[in-house]
Amino acid sequence: MDKTAESQGYEPAMRRAIELAALGSRHTINPQVGCVVLDAEGNTIAEGWHRGSGTAHAEIDAMSRLTPEQAQGSTFVVTLEPCNHTGRTSPCSLALITAGIARVVFATDDPGKQSSGGAERLREAGIEVIGGVLRDEVEELIAEWMLAIRLGRPHVTVKWASSLDGRAAANDGSSQWISGARSRARVHEQRAAADAIVVGTGTVLADNPALTARTPQGDLHNHQPIPVVIGKRKIPGDALVHQHPLEALVVGHNDLHAALSEMYDNGIRTAFVEGGPTLASAFIAAGLADRLYIYQAPMLLGGDKMALGDLGISTLSERIDLEISSVEQLDSDILITAQPTRKDV
Amino acid sequence: MDKTAESQGYEPAMRRAIELAALGSRHTINPQVGCVVLDAEGNTIAEGWHRGSGTAHAEIDAMSRLTPEQAQGSTFVVTLEPCNHTGRTSPCSLALITAGIARVVFATDDPGKQSSGGAERLREAGIEVIGGVLRDEVEELIAEWMLAIRLGRPHVTVKWASSLDGRAAANDGSSQWISGARSRARVHEQRAAADAIVVGTGTVLADNPALTARTPQGDLHNHQPIPVVIGKRKIPGDALVHQHPLEALVVGHNDLHAALSEMYDNGIRTAFVEGGPTLASAFIAAGLADRLYIYQAPMLLGGDKMALGDLGISTLSERIDLEISSVEQLDSDILITAQPTRKDV
Repeated sequence: MDKTAESQGYEPAMRRAIELAALGSRHTINPQVGCVVLDAEGNTIAEGWHRGSGTAHAEIDAMSRLTPEQAQGSTFVVTLEPCNHTGRTSPCSLALITAGIARVVFATDDPGKQSSGGAERLREAGIEVIGGVLRDEVEELIAEWMLAIRLGRPHVTVKWASSLDGRAAANDGSSQWISGARSRARVHEQRAAADAIVVGTGTVLADNPALTARTPQGDLHNHQPIPVVIGKRKIPGDALVHQHPLEALVVGHNDLHAALSEMYDNGIRTAFVEGGPTLASAFIAAGLADRLYIYQAPMLLGGDKMALGDLGISTLSERIDLEISSVEQLDSDILITAQPTRKDV
Repeated sequence: MDKTAESQGYEPAMRRAIELAALGSRHTINPQVGCVVLDAEGNTIAEGWHRGSGTAHAEIDAMSRLTPEQAQGSTFVVTLEPCNHTGRTSPCSLALITAGIARVVFATDDPGKQSSGGAERLREAGIEVIGGVLRDEVEELIAEWMLAIRLGRPHVTVKWASSLDGRAAANDGSSQWISGARSRARVHEQRAAADAIVVGTGTVLADNPALTARTPQGDLHNHQPIPVVIGKRKIPGDALVHQHPLEALVVGHNDLHAALSEMYDNGIRTAFVEGGPTLASAFIAAGLADRLYIYQAPMLLGGDKMALGDLGISTLSERIDLEISSVEQLDSDILITAQPTRKDV
């Protein structure tokens, strides 16, 4: 059997491992990882997945369901290259070697600087290693985490809402409920899906937002994003952000790269920037926006309150090209999801 | 048989009349009208439609296919109330009376000041008249003409193209090919569907556009819109607009209401405004935009070259609400078709 045919033989088990991975939390410093263990005849004898930081890695979770005799000579099909890192847990590669398994099949390399090298260590120990099985599917599942690890900063989503002529507010600043109820519910789901929600001090001072993720009934979503406030201005002690269930990360400057590093060091892998035109424009102009959610409300406003301000672009060839991944109608609103075409990655 | 049931009995013939109406030209001072003639047993014995100004009306076209004996006692199913007006042709209502027909079934009243009253005249002559059969379908087919006749001005479509942040150009004015090939082809089809294409003198002086409707291969579409130039500035004698197959209508002022009246008096029933941010904003601010085509290109530009300028709106409650009728993706562009929610009609 040639190498390609052998890889393809593991695809059903890898598909199951991807399903298992998706059971894990997206809100953790670690990625979602799933694992299926096969015996010598190719029968599934154990499954496992990673539930979040501080809990067992997927391979170890699966191993805990095996007797030592079962583990011996088995094949571990796992979505991510087994780690080679001693953190809160010992390296998975070592555990697999110790257990005497025969083969590891994985989808994507571990991009982490400290945790990579597992495949090499396994091969050196005489274990057969097959990588790249359903790599694209797995990289899509953990795309935000992959980007965060590769760039050493959180994956950044920038969201704004505007009229169909690109205004965030009327000339007097009035903007309440530009977008409709379905859009607002969607925004709160997007907040709940992020590790952090990021605003500028200007937004805190002007609007005093709670920065929580809430259901249309006003209840808190199960997961809350960490509130992050960027800027030099002082925030009052009684600002609503200080009543958030999670402690706010107050970044006392305007350096976005440094702010993202600080967020990364605090375990934040995905950031949802909802901070008004100045902050949104700054993230985009700095090339730090990985995804855009553009909500457009069915109205025209005219005037000078643009949803995005200056981006430092003087002529058309300097434009920021976008790849549009979806266009949805949410009642009367339009939601466009887009990615800046990266020139830097 | 009650009145409603009797009306419903004529719906199949009316549907056919609508199909026939659609065969006629949309580019004429008259609306598209179709006609089906039934004998006493309900069998179709003739069909007709209006081909354009100066040609026979639909009823007369159908009548020309009948012997006087067949016409006697027949039922005319026609999409528009038979006219009562002597123009280039004599009134249809008179012709129907003279022919001794038994019944007229129509969909929608003739809104024309001079041409209406046909139904009344027919009834006075002892002919049974049933109105309102499939009215909505017919009014949709000839909606632009109906609006033009009711308001005494052309139906106005305002088109603009912008980046996803609402800019028409980069700061230095560069804007060539903001939108893609499919969008440009669609715009030329929309030009070809209009009686007139309207720009400001500023656009003529800056871009010197041909204002023709062309295929992607550069050939002229079969129908060309009359070029209309609005504004006080003088246009050079060698401007491309003067090489247009149709003579340009040069409106030497900025009064949009007067300009539309002048266009209406020249037989223009549909106008396609493609004249740059100033003219587009002026039509919208004046409440003279009946339909919007908003092309959005997948890019961000920032800066101050807005696709729409000021609309005279100072606070959110003064916003111009839009009803979105479709959102399409044209390759990488988005085309939004919308109507301002009318407060004045």
